[in-house]
Amino acid sequence: MGYRAYFEDALGRLKAEKRYRVFVDLERDAEHFPYARWHREDGGVEDVIIWCSNDYLGMGLNPQVIEAMRAAAAKHGVGSGGTRNIAGTNHPLVALETELADLHGKPGCLVFTSGWISNLAAISAIGSLLPDCLILSDAYNHNSMIEGIKRSGAERQIFRHNDLEHLEDLLKAAGRERPKLIAFESLYSMDGDIAPIGKIADLAARYNALTYLDEVHAVGLYGPRGGGIADRDGEMDRIDVIEGTLAKGFGTLGGYVAADTAIIDAVRSYAASFIFTTALSPALAAAAQKAVQMLKGEQGVDLRARHQRQAALTKHALSAAGLPVMANASHIVPVFVGDAERCKAASDMLLARHSIYIQPINYPTVARGTERLRITPSPVHSDGHVAHLVDALVDVWHALDLPFTETDNIVSFPGAAPRVSEEAHCTFPDFKKAAE
Amino acid sequence: MGYRAYFEDALGRLKAEKRYRVFVDLERDAEHFPYARWHREDGGVEDVIIWCSNDYLGMGLNPQVIEAMRAAAAKHGVGSGGTRNIAGTNHPLVALETELADLHGKPGCLVFTSGWISNLAAISAIGSLLPDCLILSDAYNHNSMIEGIKRSGAERQIFRHNDLEHLEDLLKAAGRERPKLIAFESLYSMDGDIAPIGKIADLAARYNALTYLDEVHAVGLYGPRGGGIADRDGEMDRIDVIEGTLAKGFGTLGGYVAADTAIIDAVRSYAASFIFTTALSPALAAAAQKAVQMLKGEQGVDLRARHQRQAALTKHALSAAGLPVMANASHIVPVFVGDAERCKAASDMLLARHSIYIQPINYPTVARGTERLRITPSPVHSDGHVAHLVDALVDVWHALDLPFTETDNIVSFPGAAPRVSEEAHCTFPDFKKAAE
Ligand SMILES: Cc1ncc(COP(=O)(O)O)c(C=O)c1O
Ligand SMILES: Cc1ncc(COP(=O)(O)O)c(C=O)c1O
Repeated sequence: MGYRAYFEDALGRLKAEKRYRVFVDLERDAEHFPYARWHREDGGVEDVIIWCSNDYLGMGLNPQVIEAMRAAAAKHGVGSGGTRNIAGTNHPLVALETELADLHGKPGCLVFTSGWISNLAAISAIGSLLPDCLILSDAYNHNSMIEGIKRSGAERQIFRHNDLEHLEDLLKAAGRERPKLIAFESLYSMDGDIAPIGKIADLAARYNALTYLDEVHAVGLYGPRGGGIADRDGEMDRIDVIEGTLAKGFGTLGGYVAADTAIIDAVRSYAASFIFTTALSPALAAAAQKAVQMLKGEQGVDLRARHQRQAALTKHALSAAGLPVMANASHIVPVFVGDAERCKAASDMLLARHSIYIQPINYPTVARGTERLRITPSPVHSDGHVAHLVDALVDVWHALDLPFTETDNIVSFPGAAPRVSEEAHCTFPDFKKAAE
Repeated sequence: MGYRAYFEDALGRLKAEKRYRVFVDLERDAEHFPYARWHREDGGVEDVIIWCSNDYLGMGLNPQVIEAMRAAAAKHGVGSGGTRNIAGTNHPLVALETELADLHGKPGCLVFTSGWISNLAAISAIGSLLPDCLILSDAYNHNSMIEGIKRSGAERQIFRHNDLEHLEDLLKAAGRERPKLIAFESLYSMDGDIAPIGKIADLAARYNALTYLDEVHAVGLYGPRGGGIADRDGEMDRIDVIEGTLAKGFGTLGGYVAADTAIIDAVRSYAASFIFTTALSPALAAAAQKAVQMLKGEQGVDLRARHQRQAALTKHALSAAGLPVMANASHIVPVFVGDAERCKAASDMLLARHSIYIQPINYPTVARGTERLRITPSPVHSDGHVAHLVDALVDVWHALDLPFTETDNIVSFPGAAPRVSEEAHCTFPDFKKAAE
């Protein structure tokens, strides 16, 4: 068998399982978010409205954030020119680390080129430096945390998702003396459910464990200054390591961990995935710092309120129309489908018939049989956009004969919900002009 | 023992071995490269000249590259807003992939957020998809390749650095039928020596192995269009996978692999480190594409010629002064010290006395006993800068009583070398003005 055949074989397996992925080539437009131009594979171009971006607040398209990048690029250039140790530690990056340490109320912070790498680097370094370390990992933890745990060489035990009793059993069995790291997320991005951070911190204190919290889907979005769920819950000081991304709520690129200086210094000094790679660019660092600063202040408070309102409105309106919204207490709006092919078909039909882009979420991102459409309303999705979405989904649900739910499951909306279904509108901007 | 003590212990070990690292906080200035402002730990600020950047051609500070970033940021925003599969595949990124595939004459290309991740992702996916794969790895391979090999789960055998006979023995022993991947670099960045790419490709053909070539320190810098050493040697089509970075010769951030479509599609579909992370930002992608385009054309030819001239001049002038330049046929200028503490002392003294920043290169980046100063002349380092560097190094060598070499080891300079030692000058720009 030739080499090519091995790779084609591997791809054939994905196709047979209906999980071969085709990427959607999008041209976002800073002036018209959430609209974008979709470049089809056949070369055609169509206007679409994006309903599944993780630039949750639209900060990546915020004029002040863009201007921060433009100014820093002009002043300091596009790249950093080296690894952190060899000429790459740039002044905007150092400033960003100070800004993020302050956000989380920690003495130290280290920035990486992605959240993925920050989990790999930090968990692998911590797990390998603690002798005979046991890592207790939530069953739903993100791939990047799992990679970090594997790379650490430490023993791993998995506790059932958000299950405090199971976690306590494992902690108890390990004993007080053995070094233990509890690794978990604050907000699980595919279901939108939230971890009992305070109670996990209680257990950690009782059994003498370190805590490592991934706040990737919460930083910028929750808490009085956008520090995440632990910020909202007043628990930041009870968590040893807080990990976040710059690429979702903060709209840019990169990731970080904030913690005690000894931990930060150890990760900095021992993690190969931090040492042997080029440092984040000064232009990105400056843009990220601007986003963090904005979200710490009043603009952040307003944006977060508007974000939560649009998410709540979307859940309310979809569930009122009988669409199977998977309940949760966050800004994520998953709509249940439960089958890979039909999930893909729903997504394709939304695009073709309604110019709505919502990526199907299939295995391995979620478990088989729990396939879904994952909708992420942003502050710039208007009430009219929500109405348009409801109409489109109802149409697709009928066309594909997907099950509706009882309407006694309507997600409540605080205050008087606007009657969005009566004012559905979604006027596409004049992109040609904008894009040229 | 408390947790903090474990981390402090780990840090103490580094300090005892004299390999605890302190990062140099640099403020590069787009208008005055290779000068920069150094922010000292005590809060003071000093002007320095950078002699160890891996932005080898200064492309990160090139006005056209900066403008490409600024324009794309204004038009498409700062971040991509999602993973490649979920709303993150942006149009400038797709265009960059096409540009890079063309650079290397390959049908496919995949861009990552770093060269480090591109090696991890591609090697781990390839190694795990080929049944019973044997990976033959050059002894000097970069950490990111080693991490990819480990993560693949495939068997690894290490061949002596650039040793064709040893490689052939291992290939022969493995037999024709077993899937084999030869993983190596074109230009090893700490010694500056170059792999016999054509001969390795010969062996691969003879024994039916795949070839994976890391061109991170060569892309943009060698070859008629900047495709790297394989481009220069006319061997690109004989290498199966070419990996590169956007963060060195191209001056930005990110990495990539170029290969046959089946390999690219397999990496795209199977590599967790590619799937579960936010896509590169459109602003960075546009800047990188501009850099690649420029270096493919005449500007590239001129910049590469000037780069090689300044590197050759630096080697010539340093060796003529009796400084122990480690010979090689590339743009890297390593000067041998052979001791971690004295290497650090030389670096510190260059900074304190001469405002020259050259990071000491100690273990684990190079083997113990081979510590060195690694100098990277760029096209914007003038002949006067070279003269200033020679004077400074001679002064430091005397002050620290480091050994000089015989001057019959002078590295030749093609044509008549300018007598740089008679025109040493290095006028620092008015940074205050520039930085405000
Ligand atoms: C929980 C979680 N952690 C980490 C990451 C990685 O962050 P980044 O996209 O910055 O690499 C993601 C998703 O991308 C995530 O969902
Ligand atoms: C040989 C080699 N490969 C890969 C990398 C990683 O590239 P990047 O800095 O883009 O992560 C480096 C250094 O950084 C390197 O020296």
